[in-house]
Amino acid sequence: MSTTITVALDAMGGDHGPKVIVPAALSALDYYPQLSLILVGDETILKSLLIKKRYDTSRLRVHHASEQVAMDEPPAQALRYKKDSSMRVALNLVKDGIAGACVSAGNTGALLATARFVLKMLPGIDRPALIGLMPTTVNSETMVRVLDLGANIDSTATHLLQFAAMGHIVSHAIDGVATPRIALLNIGEEEIKGNEVIKQASQLFAAQSSLNYIGFVEANDIFTGKADVIVCDGFIGNIALKACEGTARMLLQIFKAAIQKSILARLAIPFLLPVLNKTKKQFDPARYNGASFLGLNGVVVKSHGNAKEVAFRMAIYQALRQAEQGVPQQIASRVELTLANTQDRAS
Amino acid sequence: MSTTITVALDAMGGDHGPKVIVPAALSALDYYPQLSLILVGDETILKSLLIKKRYDTSRLRVHHASEQVAMDEPPAQALRYKKDSSMRVALNLVKDGIAGACVSAGNTGALLATARFVLKMLPGIDRPALIGLMPTTVNSETMVRVLDLGANIDSTATHLLQFAAMGHIVSHAIDGVATPRIALLNIGEEEIKGNEVIKQASQLFAAQSSLNYIGFVEANDIFTGKADVIVCDGFIGNIALKACEGTARMLLQIFKAAIQKSILARLAIPFLLPVLNKTKKQFDPARYNGASFLGLNGVVVKSHGNAKEVAFRMAIYQALRQAEQGVPQQIASRVELTLANTQDRAS
Repeated sequence: MSTTITVALDAMGGDHGPKVIVPAALSALDYYPQLSLILVGDETILKSLLIKKRYDTSRLRVHHASEQVAMDEPPAQALRYKKDSSMRVALNLVKDGIAGACVSAGNTGALLATARFVLKMLPGIDRPALIGLMPTTVNSETMVRVLDLGANIDSTATHLLQFAAMGHIVSHAIDGVATPRIALLNIGEEEIKGNEVIKQASQLFAAQSSLNYIGFVEANDIFTGKADVIVCDGFIGNIALKACEGTARMLLQIFKAAIQKSILARLAIPFLLPVLNKTKKQFDPARYNGASFLGLNGVVVKSHGNAKEVAFRMAIYQALRQAEQGVPQQIASRVELTLANTQDRAS
Repeated sequence: MSTTITVALDAMGGDHGPKVIVPAALSALDYYPQLSLILVGDETILKSLLIKKRYDTSRLRVHHASEQVAMDEPPAQALRYKKDSSMRVALNLVKDGIAGACVSAGNTGALLATARFVLKMLPGIDRPALIGLMPTTVNSETMVRVLDLGANIDSTATHLLQFAAMGHIVSHAIDGVATPRIALLNIGEEEIKGNEVIKQASQLFAAQSSLNYIGFVEANDIFTGKADVIVCDGFIGNIALKACEGTARMLLQIFKAAIQKSILARLAIPFLLPVLNKTKKQFDPARYNGASFLGLNGVVVKSHGNAKEVAFRMAIYQALRQAEQGVPQQIASRVELTLANTQDRAS
């Protein structure tokens, strides 16, 4: 791809703000030659962080925004009163076609509400869904997409079908999976399990010849590579995501504490370092940073609030790839086809 | 406690059946002097496994049952046609007062349906809930109770309140927590998050002066020891439980594979063994085996289907403790008090 893609960064968002986002931006320019960036936020702060840094000024510019959305600010308040926030201005740049995508590490609820207001939904999609990327045990290249990770609660079967169609497109266009295997997250693999919405969704999915629907998977199969795209309501997806994070953190904490307490084990650390680094590399949350809101008329990537430089760069990469592949355009054109024969039976 | 407690074991259930359950039973008799056991199942098989084993015949006897419930048998079918199954007969022994508790590693759905049919619900409790025990990072003695882990879907706010009251009793009576901190599992800690049922449940919980309700926790806080009892709908609880299992299995698998591939790391194994054993001991699923159905008029403990000897013994221990503490009786008498002032507002 030789076309230049411009990504607007909410440079004030996240737990670390511009101190992390500016270096991440400069690093991303080195990594991705087709990338241009607009740093949106307090001009004085941003320019001071760019002093003495070497970068191609034709590929990076600062766009001033006088306000910023606090991490704990109610979304409705941010939407109503922060019209010159770095988040909102970055989204406006996407709406106006000046940027092809936007990345923010800021307040998730505010980003969702503002993105929906500024960019609007694509035709055929009722609600934006948050899609994430997770590792699998198959190998370090095989990953799984899970959506919705928390944008919606109380999704209907039709919403879930829209999520499936969008997940299919991302898995195919971004992850390069020829025919993504789509599964529904449930509490059992049998047809009789689950609530009414999931049973109804399963029937809708099965009736879609354009989707490679493989049935139900349980949450202990998220990482086993059984499916390429796992679809669920946002409440369920968020619970599963956080449970996974909590388990990983707990195990690491216990293991570290146990090693610290044992002289013998501390002696083993140098022997273990290559293994720990390899494991870390494969499961480094930084590698999976950058969940995306799908279904909007524009690419919006949400970085983890506490992302450091590498993680934020990965979020920029997700945005770049989606803009290059024209994911919103693909969703718009294909969802129409995919969902065509379900309009009568759903809703 | 010097009173003898008799526990009936569904000796044919689970992936390994009597080959694991008989040795687990004999081991439990050694561990718990106040325990007596009834092995329910095929007399010929069970007696052959007891030949040449040394045990106190006054504390262990075999009770014949001619049938057994298959692990994949539909619950309704088991309930209707397997009236002499080892599972059903073990539950009958509880109903008839011959045993004070029952343990099965068999088909969860069939156990739930049959237990509900045979033992009936306690007054004031609409649905049985599956409660489990999980580790925390606080220390190896501090654990957390989570319910419902999958007995119910689409729980109402009133059901969740009943789960909270039952969880309180188990945490207090079995785990020895003086004033259990009760939390609701949600996708955010803010009051505005979550679906209508959870918001309504939160109000019900807060209005209960007999419950030490601390508000919402997210799924990444299950293991941090913030709460002693975490309450959720069974669909959510099952998703969270399986997500935790899947994550732990994935991390272990990746770590093991990485060690195997590295000669240096293999050299470190002897140094690491004490640490790995300590970590394993703290997080050994066997230690947490034995989820219990609460709300029934009798103690029913569900062992993991693939439980080995130690794990099944832990399930027997859970049953013994609940029978000793009279958990169903405590639930019956205290739930009435606990829920008294909510009958008008709930339903």
